[in-house]
Amino acid sequence: MNLLVQKFGGTSVGSIERIENAARRVIQAVEKGHRVVVVSSAMAGETDGLLSLAHQIGKRLPEREMDVLLSTGEQKAIALFSMMLRKLGYPAVSLCGWQVPIVTDDVHTKSRIVKIGVQRLKNLINDGYIPVVAGFQGVTETWDITTLGRGGSDTTAVALASALSADCEIYTDVPGVFTADPRIVPNAKKVPYISYEEMLELASLGAKVMQIRSVEFAAKYRVRIHVRSSFSEEEGTWIVPEDEVMEKVAVRGITADTKEARFTVVKVPDKPGIAAEIFKALGEAHIVVDMIVQNVSHDGYTDMSFTVNKTEADKAEEIIRKVAEKVGAEEVVRDDKVAKVSVVGLGMKSSYGTAAKMFEVLAKHGINMMAISTSEIKISCLIEEKFAELAVRELHEAFIENNEEIKVEGG
Amino acid sequence: MNLLVQKFGGTSVGSIERIENAARRVIQAVEKGHRVVVVSSAMAGETDGLLSLAHQIGKRLPEREMDVLLSTGEQKAIALFSMMLRKLGYPAVSLCGWQVPIVTDDVHTKSRIVKIGVQRLKNLINDGYIPVVAGFQGVTETWDITTLGRGGSDTTAVALASALSADCEIYTDVPGVFTADPRIVPNAKKVPYISYEEMLELASLGAKVMQIRSVEFAAKYRVRIHVRSSFSEEEGTWIVPEDEVMEKVAVRGITADTKEARFTVVKVPDKPGIAAEIFKALGEAHIVVDMIVQNVSHDGYTDMSFTVNKTEADKAEEIIRKVAEKVGAEEVVRDDKVAKVSVVGLGMKSSYGTAAKMFEVLAKHGINMMAISTSEIKISCLIEEKFAELAVRELHEAFIENNEEIKVEGG
Repeated sequence: MNLLVQKFGGTSVGSIERIENAARRVIQAVEKGHRVVVVSSAMAGETDGLLSLAHQIGKRLPEREMDVLLSTGEQKAIALFSMMLRKLGYPAVSLCGWQVPIVTDDVHTKSRIVKIGVQRLKNLINDGYIPVVAGFQGVTETWDITTLGRGGSDTTAVALASALSADCEIYTDVPGVFTADPRIVPNAKKVPYISYEEMLELASLGAKVMQIRSVEFAAKYRVRIHVRSSFSEEEGTWIVPEDEVMEKVAVRGITADTKEARFTVVKVPDKPGIAAEIFKALGEAHIVVDMIVQNVSHDGYTDMSFTVNKTEADKAEEIIRKVAEKVGAEEVVRDDKVAKVSVVGLGMKSSYGTAAKMFEVLAKHGINMMAISTSEIKISCLIEEKFAELAVRELHEAFIENNEEIKVEGG
Repeated sequence: MNLLVQKFGGTSVGSIERIENAARRVIQAVEKGHRVVVVSSAMAGETDGLLSLAHQIGKRLPEREMDVLLSTGEQKAIALFSMMLRKLGYPAVSLCGWQVPIVTDDVHTKSRIVKIGVQRLKNLINDGYIPVVAGFQGVTETWDITTLGRGGSDTTAVALASALSADCEIYTDVPGVFTADPRIVPNAKKVPYISYEEMLELASLGAKVMQIRSVEFAAKYRVRIHVRSSFSEEEGTWIVPEDEVMEKVAVRGITADTKEARFTVVKVPDKPGIAAEIFKALGEAHIVVDMIVQNVSHDGYTDMSFTVNKTEADKAEEIIRKVAEKVGAEEVVRDDKVAKVSVVGLGMKSSYGTAAKMFEVLAKHGINMMAISTSEIKISCLIEEKFAELAVRELHEAFIENNEEIKVEGG
């Protein structure tokens, strides 16, 4: 039995017409001999509508009740999806999270799945039904409704695929994962295969194809994911274990992230414990610090730069100014006009010269690097925001369009 | 512990502002020392919106999925209601039908409650919470969502009150049960107490205050119901066992029902089995026949009249014409412009002259009676539709405004 979990995002079920289109994708797979389990998000706009209704009551709302409210969105979608499949002649049965059951912890609005009961699903599949499962939602051991956080339907799909040993198709409104944002780089190419690790770096860098947690989940349980468009027949991108990625190129993709702001604390006394004091204060306020640079000390003073997410920059600034004053720093400079440009690729692990080449490309176009950070499969440079698109285009040309120069061992 | 079930209808929770108003009614009761369980309908318009969405898919839709779809309406309402109570400082917890659980049979879209688990409710109440329960919905033994039919939230409230030995308040957009429709009879009075039996007759005659099945349920388990307006502080109407109705008047209320159509089969051969043939054909088509009159036979022929619901009149006409032709009747006459005027009252059981007085009032105003039907506590006359309002006003004046003439034994 070739089992397939097909997940449809909000835009793919955004109207009755689109639900019909999605249902026909399901039927296509069934006619090819697959047994299918459908996972559906709420219709596009539904969740926002529910949120704005709730916000008429207040800003700080009980999270348990928020989950009861938001989970109606997916419930509505699965009922309509099942009706559509039946109308088209295919027996379908909708299941809410608690009916599967998809058991989670009790951290409302961002629960984690702890267990999936598969018996009801298996019985339905064996009896020839197409189960249509609500994404995004679960149930605690004590029968409270939970939700998995925005984009949680991806996690539902991957978790179900794992529990049922099935492949997983994620239908979305883009054709797959690209080597760069096609709106910036017209030559960007769709990537046929990508490893979980690469996808995680790209997802966390702002490629909005998949929810990060769902990719972590897929990596942990080695679920093969096919991300593709619900509006086209073409193959999308397979997200798979590293050993299944055929072509281990040095660089899989280039991204630019303009969601961070940079702070520089100028002329900090260069004494042990002062850096710790700044970052401890930010940590206590749950602010994540990303790229950190400390300059070489001059005359017992140093400059210290780092980035935080723009949504937290105001809160961070307040804290940093306080600490800076306390430790006797000269001033605090904030810069919102920065971009983090990154090259990501599995092959980087075993290739030479990726960093050097990246710096060379940026230098050639007069782009100054304010900070650098690296992981095994990623190099990021912080640059002025106005150069972001230029940098992505030039790096894409150098690494992807003309990638013969990079040596990959065994690649 | 003085336990109270308070049920709010769709108009009472039709907006965030109205939900706040309803929540304040709950808080009032809590402050008076009651422990309260709330039952909420879907926000006004919600169910119709969901239905019209589904009808974009088709007309004949799977009832199991219809229940999944429609039950989201109440789920949304209880989440918002609980948020509002919490915002106002009162701990509340929403519960869907399956979370209570309210267990029903599996007749989707018109299920009947078979069992209510009260342990979770009792625990919540004992811990100081206000449970906010979704009306209208239940769950089967095999974890499928069901609904109780239109107006089913009343049944949920009455069933919960019965299971918890609580009184039941039904908040609606009218101030209670009236002796007649106040839009027709300006002198109509609100009835302070009414028996289940009287309420059933009035409900089935078109007084749209309570769902019939909820009154049957209340009668069976002797649940005391207080029907009142959510927009005013005044007392409404108590629906109670017959022995608690203080004032056993002969006539409790007057109604006019224009939802029936009348058929006359003219010159039917007066032979045994012919009436049976007509009514058997209608019964097989699940058409309910109401008032039946067969005239005295002349020369071996008779005329036969009866009424059916207007919504089924077209289907009925087709059947009747076929049978009429088969049995050799002369013709079939259909009349949609009829009204059934009824007087209802417990005291009728033991009073004299109610029927005579009714006929006299109608005759005095030249209103011809086309058919008569009676029960222990009701007399109905079929008249021309154009006289309906006049008849109700005159009967109201005779029986209710000047009711001293009717003798009631022990009344």
